[in-house]
Amino acid sequence: MYGAGDVRIENVPDARLIDSTDALVRVARAGICGSDLWPYKSMEPSETGRRMGHEFVGVVEAVGDDVRTIKAGDVVVSPFLWSDGSCVYCRRGLHSSCLHGGRYGSGDVDGGQGEAVRVPQADGTLVVLPVGADDPLMPSLLTLTDVMGTGHHAALAAQVAPGKTVAVVGDGAVGLCGVIAAKRLGAAEIILLGRHPDRIALANEFGATDIVSERGEAAVERVRELTRGLGVDSVLECVGLDQAVVTAFEIAQPGGAVGRVGVPEDASSPVGIAFWKNVGIAGGPAPARAYIEELLPDVLDGTIEPGRVFDQLTNLDGVPDGYRAMNERETIKVLIEFS
Amino acid sequence: MYGAGDVRIENVPDARLIDSTDALVRVARAGICGSDLWPYKSMEPSETGRRMGHEFVGVVEAVGDDVRTIKAGDVVVSPFLWSDGSCVYCRRGLHSSCLHGGRYGSGDVDGGQGEAVRVPQADGTLVVLPVGADDPLMPSLLTLTDVMGTGHHAALAAQVAPGKTVAVVGDGAVGLCGVIAAKRLGAAEIILLGRHPDRIALANEFGATDIVSERGEAAVERVRELTRGLGVDSVLECVGLDQAVVTAFEIAQPGGAVGRVGVPEDASSPVGIAFWKNVGIAGGPAPARAYIEELLPDVLDGTIEPGRVFDQLTNLDGVPDGYRAMNERETIKVLIEFS
Repeated sequence: MYGAGDVRIENVPDARLIDSTDALVRVARAGICGSDLWPYKSMEPSETGRRMGHEFVGVVEAVGDDVRTIKAGDVVVSPFLWSDGSCVYCRRGLHSSCLHGGRYGSGDVDGGQGEAVRVPQADGTLVVLPVGADDPLMPSLLTLTDVMGTGHHAALAAQVAPGKTVAVVGDGAVGLCGVIAAKRLGAAEIILLGRHPDRIALANEFGATDIVSERGEAAVERVRELTRGLGVDSVLECVGLDQAVVTAFEIAQPGGAVGRVGVPEDASSPVGIAFWKNVGIAGGPAPARAYIEELLPDVLDGTIEPGRVFDQLTNLDGVPDGYRAMNERETIKVLIEFS
Repeated sequence: MYGAGDVRIENVPDARLIDSTDALVRVARAGICGSDLWPYKSMEPSETGRRMGHEFVGVVEAVGDDVRTIKAGDVVVSPFLWSDGSCVYCRRGLHSSCLHGGRYGSGDVDGGQGEAVRVPQADGTLVVLPVGADDPLMPSLLTLTDVMGTGHHAALAAQVAPGKTVAVVGDGAVGLCGVIAAKRLGAAEIILLGRHPDRIALANEFGATDIVSERGEAAVERVRELTRGLGVDSVLECVGLDQAVVTAFEIAQPGGAVGRVGVPEDASSPVGIAFWKNVGIAGGPAPARAYIEELLPDVLDGTIEPGRVFDQLTNLDGVPDGYRAMNERETIKVLIEFS
């Protein structure tokens, strides 16, 4: 890609093994991803261009000396990022934050929309498929590179579980895979927010129980109608525009969860910082009534002594000065004793 | 309170039972809350003023005809919001979203910084304490109304669990209670971000293992140094300023969680909408590698058919037109087949 709207097919130097942990993969099938459309819409013109593609399945042509689990002839699928499989994050299943991982199409690593790719960290990255490269399942296997995994991630982040009510914001490939993921995880109701008839038809086949084609406040109202005025337990945000996140918050019920996989518009915003690290944020006004019963025994037996935060005692007449003292940081917290 | 900085002690009509589910409580101890300082800093002057206070313990003077679990003479603690204990949210422990609950000091419900309070929904709201009103534990019991429960809520929202590394942003009463909560839940390391010597001393006694008194980028660097470059698993955000949330995101490690209990500056912002409902948001780039192994069996046996999102097939030469077609929403997703 040389700029917005400017995609060219060109000859490049053949992909080849460089590191001893590499595999060389001849690509059999590849996908164009919704995220490839971001630079397609907005990329500044470039002299050198940018290699594209990160969704591919193929056949291994050769492997480096240190590759143990992959061999020439294997049919393999790659996730959209490569990863070593052994760092602290990979070991806990967060391969997208691998300390030694990276992106296809950057540096001397090829993009997936081409005939061959050098795959770094082959043992940690590639998964061998038990089917031939022309198997009819190939399109579905290809979605495991990105969109199906991403829809699944949205569902997990939104805490979808059996019996829950779910809304999916966005009817692109990720949103549609989110419908599959929500159904697979046992959702009782799945509301798709979308407006393209062909996508709606597919969503219904995938398990969507309701479709909301309204926009903005009308969409929020419609979801509330469908959920006895409460909103849904789980929202899969599969768009990434700020407005989609606002809608997600509005249709979530109190205590609900939003799973966000749509890439934020501004990567350097606070939300962008959290997104790229998969850091979640939750909280709000505490249900203190629920916690009194949990914490009371520990207070009564002296296990915890939170009362020590009160470092100033006053009476009713002293309240105005208590406000002043707290506001001026003279005191941590004021206790008012009534006689 | 009649406006910023203007707190007055005045005689008001005696609190009295109104509804049959009310209790009348004579206040024994009350607290001034950090959140009371927001109007103290910024409230517009008001003719009628506003009743203040939502942290109190006291003795029940009388109850309405329909109150079953509370009786005159009981020593009771109230959470900072009243709640019916029986609605869909209370039943799941989210009393702060009670469908029939509310705030002290609004309408005809008294504030807690006064001699007596009418408590609506007494059965759902009040908890009877097994100690006398003058028990030495009263300051600690009083923190269960708000700050200790709020610190606990931050720790739960930040997913604190045994062995985790934790940072607490803010050394106010809630932050200090957050240190107690994190230790109680088994945190291995607890880093307090704060700069007041008296508060730091108390935090150390409560279980903080490290103190970071730097600000901004220097604080982020220091937390990284303390955590082998990774950042912490859990961040308790106990301030509420936008900058504190940014710091929280920066010091969280990939896959970590921020528990936010500091009230957002702008209640009508997207973050404010989520906060007041206790709606969480998580997600980011999917660890697709981890999910391939989980989802592969379901693809192989045909349980899920995500490949149906590919509704256009092309070859390498057709890629530029594939981008165009996806960008113009002619197609959901393009599959590139290599020969």
